[in-house]
Amino acid sequence: MEVMRAAAEREALGDPVYHLEVGQPGSTAPKGVIQAAKDALDNHRLGYTVALGIPELRAAIADHYAREYGVSVPQDRIVVTTGSSGGFLLSFLAAFDQGDKVALVAPGYPCYRHILTALGIKPVIIETTKEDRYQPSPALLEKAQAEHGKIDGLIVASPSNPTGTMLSKEDMAALAEYCGQSGIRLISDEIYQGISYGRGFETVLSHADHAVVVNSFSKYFSMTGWRLGWLVLPEDLLRPVECLAQNLFISPPTLSQVAAVAAFDCREELESNVARYAANRDLLLRELPQSGFGDLAPSDGAFYLYADVGHMTNDSLSFCSRILKETGAAVTPGLDFDEARGHRTMRFSFSGTTEEIAAAAAALKDWRP
Amino acid sequence: MEVMRAAAEREALGDPVYHLEVGQPGSTAPKGVIQAAKDALDNHRLGYTVALGIPELRAAIADHYAREYGVSVPQDRIVVTTGSSGGFLLSFLAAFDQGDKVALVAPGYPCYRHILTALGIKPVIIETTKEDRYQPSPALLEKAQAEHGKIDGLIVASPSNPTGTMLSKEDMAALAEYCGQSGIRLISDEIYQGISYGRGFETVLSHADHAVVVNSFSKYFSMTGWRLGWLVLPEDLLRPVECLAQNLFISPPTLSQVAAVAAFDCREELESNVARYAANRDLLLRELPQSGFGDLAPSDGAFYLYADVGHMTNDSLSFCSRILKETGAAVTPGLDFDEARGHRTMRFSFSGTTEEIAAAAAALKDWRP
Repeated sequence: MEVMRAAAEREALGDPVYHLEVGQPGSTAPKGVIQAAKDALDNHRLGYTVALGIPELRAAIADHYAREYGVSVPQDRIVVTTGSSGGFLLSFLAAFDQGDKVALVAPGYPCYRHILTALGIKPVIIETTKEDRYQPSPALLEKAQAEHGKIDGLIVASPSNPTGTMLSKEDMAALAEYCGQSGIRLISDEIYQGISYGRGFETVLSHADHAVVVNSFSKYFSMTGWRLGWLVLPEDLLRPVECLAQNLFISPPTLSQVAAVAAFDCREELESNVARYAANRDLLLRELPQSGFGDLAPSDGAFYLYADVGHMTNDSLSFCSRILKETGAAVTPGLDFDEARGHRTMRFSFSGTTEEIAAAAAALKDWRP
Repeated sequence: MEVMRAAAEREALGDPVYHLEVGQPGSTAPKGVIQAAKDALDNHRLGYTVALGIPELRAAIADHYAREYGVSVPQDRIVVTTGSSGGFLLSFLAAFDQGDKVALVAPGYPCYRHILTALGIKPVIIETTKEDRYQPSPALLEKAQAEHGKIDGLIVASPSNPTGTMLSKEDMAALAEYCGQSGIRLISDEIYQGISYGRGFETVLSHADHAVVVNSFSKYFSMTGWRLGWLVLPEDLLRPVECLAQNLFISPPTLSQVAAVAAFDCREELESNVARYAANRDLLLRELPQSGFGDLAPSDGAFYLYADVGHMTNDSLSFCSRILKETGAAVTPGLDFDEARGHRTMRFSFSGTTEEIAAAAAALKDWRP
């Protein structure tokens, strides 16, 4: 946030800013979605929908699982939500009680722990390393339970924000099995799926029907401001989530729901976005090490590079402020993602245009801490 | 919900249904909003916005208070939310701790107590009568505190759903003063403001700067499915709500925000909606008593008539089911609004077209329980 504010101030003064701090695609929604939205504005009353989402969209999401993952998901286990944010809120409230302990890894998406805390649920932070690929494992969960007592839930993200690392099929299966056997509710954040670099995608649904999947139209489908996501729920959470959704949200945004049905027919445009991310990633993987940013997490997916900069600074916030001031590159310090160790890490996002990423890399090239 | 399901089944069979059960306008968003949305689809990237909402919309809402109420509200106290639903969630989380007691009246909007309960906050139900105009008062709050101990908050709705009753200027002022003196956080649900029948509107902002206002584009502005509302916050809740909004919602739907700026320039179309509600209300007030529905709450605003049907039934759910089956009129039993006494009440919504309301009244005319 501080970096974003400083970047905005810099831009207001007319100085160039290269946005490597943003967590959203630089592209708009695909053309087919925009056209569907215009049609709906002409022809649809756009009142409330049923709380679980319009049937056409739930069916389209079920088809998506069959086509992309070869997994059969009954439409009635799919719930359309107001972004993945809405999905987290609903699934946390339905799956956990106040005082429950939910494990999540650091570095990780900061909203997980903030939402849990706001709801009176206790986040249990599992510190992961490059050797763990920054992902949880049965061994790490064992250790966490030895230290904190019985854990009630686990949030896993593959690809992860901020690291971009992914779980292999075998690791995802082992994690799902361990959680199933240990009575740990597994919540799988799959919002970056569709964006990877040479690795296939694994949904937890291939391995467990007790897990909760959280997904979104924001990343691969490039529809952030449309605030639309979905949950795939196990049977026992369906009714609780339906009641909560009716009371907490009434329904997700109607125009977004109607338009999103078209998103699944926009593969060509969406894949061209992924090709742009891949080119941006190649560029940064080539250029960043020359500027001293060579200690990077394995970047399997999403649009992030997570760098250990401990050899250059012990204060990533000031470090990022200096980089912005001296080069124009806005980069996120690691503190939001890892409270204990983020003073020596930072996240580069490459979701922008290739021109912007190239300009940032060039500006960083001659910079020295 | 049961009535809605039965109505849908009836419609699927091709039988006519008159929708007097719905809580939303029969109209679309005003034309100016629809055009602004189309323009934004052409010209706007529709990414995330800042968590508090776009400055143009916050400024337009501030202007609205100056113009309509003669109240000066600084723009930075206005927070755009994902519907009033988002506003309730954010304000309840920011204003109350788990275990706090929040008073609300029965009959009232059922989501209040469901959201409070989901968040671990205790709803304290104050039963109100026609003599109270179904509204809370300092005397009723005194009584509730004598019975339940210190109360931490009060939710008031004027106009009210389901009764349509409104607080006078004097009553609103007295309530705000009592809450201020007693350390009770006052949350004023003003989402039906703009829709009244001969009475002026009172915002609690005229009387107290410690209160929270929840408002919405769903009712007067006829934008239910757009999921957009706003809060006006006291200074001490600004920072907590901003943090919660960032983590729980990221931002409200972008297209809705951009388009809603135009809503304030659509007065003519919006006032024609209110004129339709007024005509529908007149029609029902004339016709319903002839069918036995004469014991009605004072219908000051919103688009509801709340009827005591205790002389005809002691089981409003079966009663409404029979009415639907035998006349085609879908009406809401009072149980959702008043768990203890709703078995003898029902709510008629007149938000539909005048043709539909007239057809329903005609169908009810010859019906006898």
